Amino acid sequence: MNYAALQNSFFKLKSNRTFEFFVIAIIIISALEIGAKTFELPEQAIAFTKLLDVFITLFFLVEITIRFIAEPEKRRFFHNGWNVFDSLVVAVSLIPIDNSEMALLARLVRVFRVLRMVSVIPELRILISSLIKALPQLGYVMLLMFIIFYIYAAVGSFLFNQINPVLWGNIAISMLTLFRVMTFEDWTDVQYETMEVYPLSWIFYLSFIFFTAFAFLNMVIGIVVNVMEEEHAKEKALKHVGDPTIGDLQKEIRELKQIILENKG
Amino acid sequence: MNYAALQNSFFKLKSNRTFEFFVIAIIIISALEIGAKTFELPEQAIAFTKLLDVFITLFFLVEITIRFIAEPEKRRFFHNGWNVFDSLVVAVSLIPIDNSEMALLARLVRVFRVLRMVSVIPELRILISSLIKALPQLGYVMLLMFIIFYIYAAVGSFLFNQINPVLWGNIAISMLTLFRVMTFEDWTDVQYETMEVYPLSWIFYLSFIFFTAFAFLNMVIGIVVNVMEEEHAKEKALKHVGDPTIGDLQKEIRELKQIILENKG
Amino acid sequence: MNYAALQNSFFKLKSNRTFEFFVIAIIIISALEIGAKTFELPEQAIAFTKLLDVFITLFFLVEITIRFIAEPEKRRFFHNGWNVFDSLVVAVSLIPIDNSEMALLARLVRVFRVLRMVSVIPELRILISSLIKALPQLGYVMLLMFIIFYIYAAVGSFLFNQINPVLWGNIAISMLTLFRVMTFEDWTDVQYETMEVYPLSWIFYLSFIFFTAFAFLNMVIGIVVNVMEEEHAKEKALKHVGDPTIGDLQKEIRELKQIILENKG
Amino acid sequence: MNYAALQNSFFKLKSNRTFEFFVIAIIIISALEIGAKTFELPEQAIAFTKLLDVFITLFFLVEITIRFIAEPEKRRFFHNGWNVFDSLVVAVSLIPIDNSEMALLARLVRVFRVLRMVSVIPELRILISSLIKALPQLGYVMLLMFIIFYIYAAVGSFLFNQINPVLWGNIAISMLTLFRVMTFEDWTDVQYETMEVYPLSWIFYLSFIFFTAFAFLNMVIGIVVNVMEEEHAKEKALKHVGDPTIGDLQKEIRELKQIILENKG
Repeated sequence: MNYAALQNSFFKLKSNRTFEFFVIAIIIISALEIGAKTFELPEQAIAFTKLLDVFITLFFLVEITIRFIAEPEKRRFFHNGWNVFDSLVVAVSLIPIDNSEMALLARLVRVFRVLRMVSVIPELRILISSLIKALPQLGYVMLLMFIIFYIYAAVGSFLFNQINPVLWGNIAISMLTLFRVMTFEDWTDVQYETMEVYPLSWIFYLSFIFFTAFAFLNMVIGIVVNVMEEEHAKEKALKHVGDPTIGDLQKEIRELKQIILENKG
Repeated sequence: MNYAALQNSFFKLKSNRTFEFFVIAIIIISALEIGAKTFELPEQAIAFTKLLDVFITLFFLVEITIRFIAEPEKRRFFHNGWNVFDSLVVAVSLIPIDNSEMALLARLVRVFRVLRMVSVIPELRILISSLIKALPQLGYVMLLMFIIFYIYAAVGSFLFNQINPVLWGNIAISMLTLFRVMTFEDWTDVQYETMEVYPLSWIFYLSFIFFTAFAFLNMVIGIVVNVMEEEHAKEKALKHVGDPTIGDLQKEIRELKQIILENKG
Repeated sequence: MNYAALQNSFFKLKSNRTFEFFVIAIIIISALEIGAKTFELPEQAIAFTKLLDVFITLFFLVEITIRFIAEPEKRRFFHNGWNVFDSLVVAVSLIPIDNSEMALLARLVRVFRVLRMVSVIPELRILISSLIKALPQLGYVMLLMFIIFYIYAAVGSFLFNQINPVLWGNIAISMLTLFRVMTFEDWTDVQYETMEVYPLSWIFYLSFIFFTAFAFLNMVIGIVVNVMEEEHAKEKALKHVGDPTIGDLQKEIRELKQIILENKG
Repeated sequence: MNYAALQNSFFKLKSNRTFEFFVIAIIIISALEIGAKTFELPEQAIAFTKLLDVFITLFFLVEITIRFIAEPEKRRFFHNGWNVFDSLVVAVSLIPIDNSEMALLARLVRVFRVLRMVSVIPELRILISSLIKALPQLGYVMLLMFIIFYIYAAVGSFLFNQINPVLWGNIAISMLTLFRVMTFEDWTDVQYETMEVYPLSWIFYLSFIFFTAFAFLNMVIGIVVNVMEEEHAKEKALKHVGDPTIGDLQKEIRELKQIILENKG
């Protein structure tokens, strides 16, 4: 059996629905195994998960190899972000880890196998792609929000450093405290503490809440407007493909005029 | 009186407005009785509620029987989800409960009688139907959100299990803790606790909040866009039924052209 | 000077911009006085506020009398809800209160004078009207939400009554507790307490949060869609008044056809 | 070299991309320096930041001078709000501060240098402008919200003053407490406290939450509708510039009619 025939049969296998469902099933089993490991298990079950782990790792290795061989142009395989992601997850799983220090890391890496669910189900892939597409448009709003955070954190750590260094010790801690204030999580405790020294410090908190809420609102509206416009554009492109436009009508009326004028002459 | 006549008179009764209002009144009384039972009542009142209970159970039984007999095609009766729901509520109420253990269960089942309010008022039925219709469209976003929760819960219970087993003991408890973090309920307490061991664990919480907020936002926008499009479609279908389209105009212009060309010849 | 002349001159006075601004100024002074009273004031200031109070009460009485006399049709005066509101506020202020028990009530009634700001400024009046108009459309969603609250409160007080009667004592207290859960205010404390007895009670809270969040979302979207449609309708009515429609074009083309056909004959 | 030549070369320098990036780089360094100062630094680093501070102050002075000289019409320079802002920040930085009391103030003023990021990046400038433009439209909703706060704060400080003067001491403190209630931050603690004296005071809190939530919702919808309409208007203006309208078609059909009628004669 030559390579071309192998590639062809693998391509058929890859596109086979039963194979697809089998892959999804293995990913779900892999996810369940990860979940099961967080419970206290009897000795036998631990031995079984170790075996299962080896099987899943091998299966994923075989699956990605099949997908790689099935690809007619090898270069395009790694242009697809999801393929790169899958290969990385498989590659890292293969590294043998004996050291107990690294055992935790190995466990964490295996958790990302669950993300393969996203790379396998096309609908989830589309969802993630659209989220990633929306990000750059929001870049400037996020930059603005970061600037607001940075300024308030600087002012906060200059003024309130002495009052409570745990919350306002330096600009990094202050930004975390401000994020907490933004989520309204016990923000009045933070406020009352500083108001004892600076009675007007409520201005600091209220203005911060207004600015961030406003910026956030702007961001949300930005996304909504964007999504709606895309939907409208898609709808238009789909529905009115064959429909005549006002411009088409104008052309026809002009032709008619031409005919009548010729007729007249 | 034969069966057909009975069916006909019950059909008239069922559609009678006074009967409808009477049914709603009994449901409201049933709801008030359930509410009253949660207060401490004098002996006499308890005796009265027991009597009322029997009356309501019988009334509901009679009502559903009337509705069943009134139905021309018996098979279609149970195709309607609301009829099935009503029949179930009535059937369960009929089971005699002597055991004190089951008394609580009997009480709980009677609470669902209040839901009959929804099955009786058409506007509420439409509301619930539209909510149920919106669910499958959101299925993939919910799956994505579940995957995010699952991964973070797995990572959380691997890393923070030793720090606080009450919050991060296993993947199920961790998911509940993460839901709490998502609602911003005392989430900083959870965070500060783990930051003492892993100072960088704020990345875990902040990234989780961003991802879930983003996914949630996407879901909300999804519903809004959907509802709006349906509204637009409905509006179009209603308003522009008889209106000519650009395509109609094109046809008429072409006819005109034909006439002129024939005229010319 | 006869009554008609008086009415006319009062009508002019009422519509005078200077008079309007003077009324707003008195309302603002009245609001400031109410605010000032919440601080501890020296003897002299208290004496002054008493004098100011008498003056404001008299001024409002005079103002409403002028507006009443200025009205050509007396009957229509009380058809306007804002006039009724203004008259009530003035009338209640006139009741002499000596009893110290009632002093608090008198103070509270005077607070509602601040609401006269809304009745005086037309833009705020429009805002309130539009809010009131939106309410009935939301009636069924609110009824649905009330039913959800009622059922969960009944179940909650049946199950958790023994665990914490302060939070789940009866259906009324339970509904207040559920409102608290809906605002995410320390809801996990409520949950952890009941989970000690019923480990599965997290289902109760999570399902409640999902249902109310969903119903609330539905309500918000309902308002948004409504407001948008009204805006669109307004816009259309304003912009395209004189513009020809596709129907107009069709009529003209048919006229043209008629002419050509006649020509042909 | 005469003044006109200088102005011209400065204008070129100002518009130079390399120069622009250099300015942004200095602002970022300035921001990082401000952030670094919030950490505890060794002696040498403090000496270095002092030097850096002098350099940045001088650089900003030179930069604004270049921009001022480059401006052909000096008067228009200060008509631009961003130029006024930049000049103020630079001017205040120049004031020599020896007094240790004022050292904190000097530090705070320097924080505002970070805001120069907004004045330098055009996209952020547009974002801020659009936020400022949206404010006046929301003016009346904000006034309404302030009136709601004022009335509830007056009632709150009349009724609950004796219960907890820390939260309800006077109208100003009460408004801050109400803002806290609006953000749902430990609002039940505030409520349970007053419910011990006035068992019906939950009406106060629930009605307040409903009113403010409703007003806030109205505000958000106001912005969304506004932004959407602007987007639609922009889109229309951009896309359909050269496209024929139904009105254009009507004109052409009438011309045709004219020709045919003339032909007939």
